[in-house]
Amino acid sequence: MTAKRSRMSAKDRKTVILDVATGLIATHPWEDVTVAQIHEAAGISKGGFYHHFTSKEDVLTAVLMRLADASTAAGQAVYERSEGGPVARFTTFLAATARWELAHADQIMGVIRIALREGNEPILLKLEQEAQRRATPLMRTLVRAGVEQGVFDVVDVEMTVDLLQRAWRLRWVVLAEARQRCAAGDLSGGRALLEQRLQLEERMTSRLLGCTNTPVRMPDPEEFADFLCSA
Amino acid sequence: MTAKRSRMSAKDRKTVILDVATGLIATHPWEDVTVAQIHEAAGISKGGFYHHFTSKEDVLTAVLMRLADASTAAGQAVYERSEGGPVARFTTFLAATARWELAHADQIMGVIRIALREGNEPILLKLEQEAQRRATPLMRTLVRAGVEQGVFDVVDVEMTVDLLQRAWRLRWVVLAEARQRCAAGDLSGGRALLEQRLQLEERMTSRLLGCTNTPVRMPDPEEFADFLCSA
Repeated sequence: MTAKRSRMSAKDRKTVILDVATGLIATHPWEDVTVAQIHEAAGISKGGFYHHFTSKEDVLTAVLMRLADASTAAGQAVYERSEGGPVARFTTFLAATARWELAHADQIMGVIRIALREGNEPILLKLEQEAQRRATPLMRTLVRAGVEQGVFDVVDVEMTVDLLQRAWRLRWVVLAEARQRCAAGDLSGGRALLEQRLQLEERMTSRLLGCTNTPVRMPDPEEFADFLCSA
Repeated sequence: MTAKRSRMSAKDRKTVILDVATGLIATHPWEDVTVAQIHEAAGISKGGFYHHFTSKEDVLTAVLMRLADASTAAGQAVYERSEGGPVARFTTFLAATARWELAHADQIMGVIRIALREGNEPILLKLEQEAQRRATPLMRTLVRAGVEQGVFDVVDVEMTVDLLQRAWRLRWVVLAEARQRCAAGDLSGGRALLEQRLQLEERMTSRLLGCTNTPVRMPDPEEFADFLCSA
C-alpha cells in the first residue's frame, strides 16, 4: 500500500471508487468493466473495495443513486434562487434540470446503455423509482404553489406530480436517438425529433397542470445543440 | 408415481403447478410457501416441478404473467362485444376490467401482499411493466377511436395510454386499505376512501382523454361493496 492510499479515509476511498466507476460508465461498456479494473484505477486494494461494496452491481447502484442525489440537489438550489410566479419558477426549474442533465450527458448516456441491455430492467426500474422519489418533494412544492395562487388547476397534487415525472421520463431515450441521427448525417431529422419531443412534453405538462393558457415552457431546443452534435 | 400423474401431459403438469401456486398466493404468505408444498399439492414429483420451473420465484413470475394474460383477454373480449360511441365503449371496458379484477380479488390481494414485502420491488415492477405491455394495444385502439371520432382530444396517443395506466395503477392499494377500514368497523370511512379514489381516477382519465364535458365513467362504487365487506 502506498503512502497516498493509507492517508485516504474510508469515506474518501468510497468516493474515489464511485468517481472511477462513474467515469467508466461514461466511457466503457459496463459489462466489460471488472471489479479489478475499478479498484486498480481507484488505487485501492481488492480488500478495500470489498470493504465498501459487495459487487460491481452494488457500485453501479451507488453511482446511480449519487447521480440522482446530485440532480435533485441541483434542481433544489436553482428553485431556491428562482423568482417570479409559479409558471416562471416551474419553467426555470425545468430549464435548470435539463442543463444539469446535459452537463452530465456522458454519464446519463452510459446509464441508458446499461439500462437497455437485456436483463438490466431491474436496474432501470430501480433508478427510475429512486430518482422519482428524490424529485417528488420539490415537484410537490412547485405544483402546490401554482394551485394556491390559482395559476394551476390540477386534479390532484400527488397524482399530477407522479404523472408529470412519467411524462418526462423517456426524453433521454429520444435524445439518444436524435443524437444518433445527427451522427449519421441527418441533422434536421435529429433536431426535429428533439423538438417534437419537447413540444409533446410541454403540451402534456401544461395539460396536467391545468395551465394551457399560460403554459409552462420546456427548455429551448438550442440548449441541446452541443449535445446533438457531440456524438 | 401414480397412474393419474403419468397420464398428465407436460402442459397439464405445468398448468396444475400454476393453479396450485395461484391458490397458495391467495391463501398463504408467499414467503412461507415451499417448492415441496407446491409440487406435493400439485401431485407432481420434485423432478417434474424442476422440469418446468427453476425456483419458487420462477413459478411466481409465471403466475403473475398468467394473471396479466387473463386480465387482458377478458378486457379484449368485452371490448369486442361492446357497443356505442368511444366514451360508452371506454366506460364499458373500465367496468369489465374492474369486474374481472374483483372476481380475482384474492389472487390480486395476494400479489399485493407479496409486492409490498421489502426486497420484492423488482417483482412488483416487472408485473406492472408486463401487465401494462399487454394492455397497451387495446388501450391504444380505444383512445384512437375516440380521437378519430372527435370525442377525445389527446396530446399524444402513446403518452396518453401510458399515463392512463399509471393513473389507475394504485387503485388496488387503496382498495386494500379501504377493505381494512371496513374490517375494522369503519364502513363509511372505507367506502369514502374508495369513492374518492374512483372520482380522482375519473377526473384524471377524462383530463388525459380531453373529454371533460362527456367524461368516461369509472365503475360504480356499488360494484365494490361485496369486496369491501368480505375481509
